[in-house]
Amino acid sequence: MCSTRACTEGRKPISTSIGESDFPVPIEDRYFEDYVPNCVYEYGSITISEQEILEFAKKFDPQPFHTDPEAASHSPFGGLIASGWHTASVMMRLFADHYLSRVASLGGPGVDELRWHKPVRPGDSLRIRVTVLEAERSGSKPDQGLVRSFVEVFDQEGNPVMELTVMNILLGREAGSTAI
Amino acid sequence: MCSTRACTEGRKPISTSIGESDFPVPIEDRYFEDYVPNCVYEYGSITISEQEILEFAKKFDPQPFHTDPEAASHSPFGGLIASGWHTASVMMRLFADHYLSRVASLGGPGVDELRWHKPVRPGDSLRIRVTVLEAERSGSKPDQGLVRSFVEVFDQEGNPVMELTVMNILLGREAGSTAI
Repeated sequence: MCSTRACTEGRKPISTSIGESDFPVPIEDRYFEDYVPNCVYEYGSITISEQEILEFAKKFDPQPFHTDPEAASHSPFGGLIASGWHTASVMMRLFADHYLSRVASLGGPGVDELRWHKPVRPGDSLRIRVTVLEAERSGSKPDQGLVRSFVEVFDQEGNPVMELTVMNILLGREAGSTAI
Repeated sequence: MCSTRACTEGRKPISTSIGESDFPVPIEDRYFEDYVPNCVYEYGSITISEQEILEFAKKFDPQPFHTDPEAASHSPFGGLIASGWHTASVMMRLFADHYLSRVASLGGPGVDELRWHKPVRPGDSLRIRVTVLEAERSGSKPDQGLVRSFVEVFDQEGNPVMELTVMNILLGREAGSTAI
């Protein structure tokens, strides 16, 4: 089951004025069975500062348009932009804080079709919209299942900046309640 | 052109004892034309500490098996593991330091089929092997092209920990030399 409102929201562009969508089950009691295909949830935002962009890029992605505001101003981007991996990591923070179960997550095998649509710049605030695409119980381990979620990241003006499909393995409710 | 040695290395498992592969063109003078399909390059390593795992995860992926060594020891992973996004970011550092051009990179539209094969633990040293899959000049912007690279990440024992296909847009040499 998922809330009707969330399910009927469909794929409309996110609005900066709406609040978080209600997942029908609290994050501390969310199991595989609670991820229902076609349900849509929205969460955020997190604002990215210039300092954070520079810090992340100097560690992980030291290209001048990520690490040097002066050099970036002469690049095709016309100014400093966040590493795409920084944007992905901020997406993960929203995904972990609001969507992924606190008790049933067993990690994820990977992600597919990650696309960066628009550079993220200092001061941008990111929100995510998550659509449950598919939830398949494991044949070999029936106490768990694989959930595929389509995640869109938007900036404060509703522009899409990134999208990807995330896979997560989640413990089923019965296994979770007997495991402890 | 790519070095014969690199090209004939094929897809053998990476060895921790071999040095970096020689890209035939220095990173400061590397353009679209220098990324030749089937060439294989190896780079690394970067060691990930417990402190770094905790720091990254507290910012971006606060799941207990990434942020709390004690809780992690009772998880199915049996101990602290790095966020998959941390592993991806370390991959990007090796990719940017050694493989991606310093002068011709125009960012990337995305990545495909990212898979995390094995958890990364404190003290693990990561290396990458990059295979140029495809290099296609843009039809609409003939001064640049898209390079698709298959990237494998290995730990110090040669175990595959992650793989993905990365897309990068790169300026061609002629455009690069006339742009300045």
